[in-house]
Amino acid sequence: MKHLSFLAAIACALIFGACCNQNKQCPMQNDNATNQVMNTIMTRHSVRAYTSQEVSADTIETLLRAAMAAPTGMDVRPWRFVVLTDKTNFDTIFGADNMNLEKYKQAAVVFVLCADTTWSHPQLTNGEVRPNGNWTSDMGACAENLLLAAHAYGLGAVWTACYPYANRMDPVRAGLGLPDQVVPFCIIPVGYPAEQTEPKDKWNPENIHYNRW
Amino acid sequence: MKHLSFLAAIACALIFGACCNQNKQCPMQNDNATNQVMNTIMTRHSVRAYTSQEVSADTIETLLRAAMAAPTGMDVRPWRFVVLTDKTNFDTIFGADNMNLEKYKQAAVVFVLCADTTWSHPQLTNGEVRPNGNWTSDMGACAENLLLAAHAYGLGAVWTACYPYANRMDPVRAGLGLPDQVVPFCIIPVGYPAEQTEPKDKWNPENIHYNRW
Repeated sequence: MKHLSFLAAIACALIFGACCNQNKQCPMQNDNATNQVMNTIMTRHSVRAYTSQEVSADTIETLLRAAMAAPTGMDVRPWRFVVLTDKTNFDTIFGADNMNLEKYKQAAVVFVLCADTTWSHPQLTNGEVRPNGNWTSDMGACAENLLLAAHAYGLGAVWTACYPYANRMDPVRAGLGLPDQVVPFCIIPVGYPAEQTEPKDKWNPENIHYNRW
Repeated sequence: MKHLSFLAAIACALIFGACCNQNKQCPMQNDNATNQVMNTIMTRHSVRAYTSQEVSADTIETLLRAAMAAPTGMDVRPWRFVVLTDKTNFDTIFGADNMNLEKYKQAAVVFVLCADTTWSHPQLTNGEVRPNGNWTSDMGACAENLLLAAHAYGLGAVWTACYPYANRMDPVRAGLGLPDQVVPFCIIPVGYPAEQTEPKDKWNPENIHYNRW
């Protein structure tokens, strides 16, 4: 009898395990998904030290897919990406006095998030190339998607600003050969964490007003 | 014997159910969390029609917690929020000719994401109040966190721009009584979806360059 109960328990475990791995069929999928997403948003934080473990090409592509799933004003999709795994010219690209240079050299991969600052649309701009007034906001959402995806994969990352600082943008533009209308927005080094750091608690109810300031 | 096996199965189901609801103890937590987060990022999309179902105060607070967990340059945290559930003055606040007015009126709650465009720090600004050059980027990340959290809760939302359009910002500033240094960045109506819409596929490998443009 003990033996049979044990078998029944094993069978049940297998069934539940399989069920929970297939999101759509898992009975607690909704609450579970909500919790997992909120947990990822609330625990994402800057990681500035990385192990030597490589990040696979598949994972790099997944992070880029997350970045390109961000919302953009008038669906302009201004994002462009330069993915750096060859560190040979990092001193030139980022400047030898860049405070973040050691992080970039240590990371398995460095994402340079760029934006095309112009746009054109058959109707909305009459086919003319015009400046895009929303690109910094759009790129903020794009960067956050990449950071959240990295955190969900157990990777560490940190958003380091490039725009609007000329002393950071100029060597990156030259070193990567960016076209004139493309601005380097931020630099995100990504790797497996080599430090244990905690998220900040930024909750502050004084930031909230109801129905009027 | 059958009876005992059945009891064992029930007990096992309860144990596994409890386990899967407590993220840290769930044996398939890692892959599951990764999939849930990626699924949320990849399927988030604009929802522009809402049912009359209310959104609870707890859920509103959770969305604000997500928004305030975003990264910000130099940890400035420029975000400020006006949460609108009283729709009495929407024509004045948003302008009677605002193309998004009907969405705002239909939504259970409307978040006005604002930014303090100044900052002050004992060392970094010598205690002086200075303009913050990163606030639009920061607010983009903040808005994306709120949108992702809403989607994770089964809510529909859409980012509608306010900044940098004077004809949208001016009535909101006046209608909500915003201080001079606070800019209304975007308006996000949130409610339970009354439309079935699909996410766009924005993946475009031509946006990616490796090691050089």
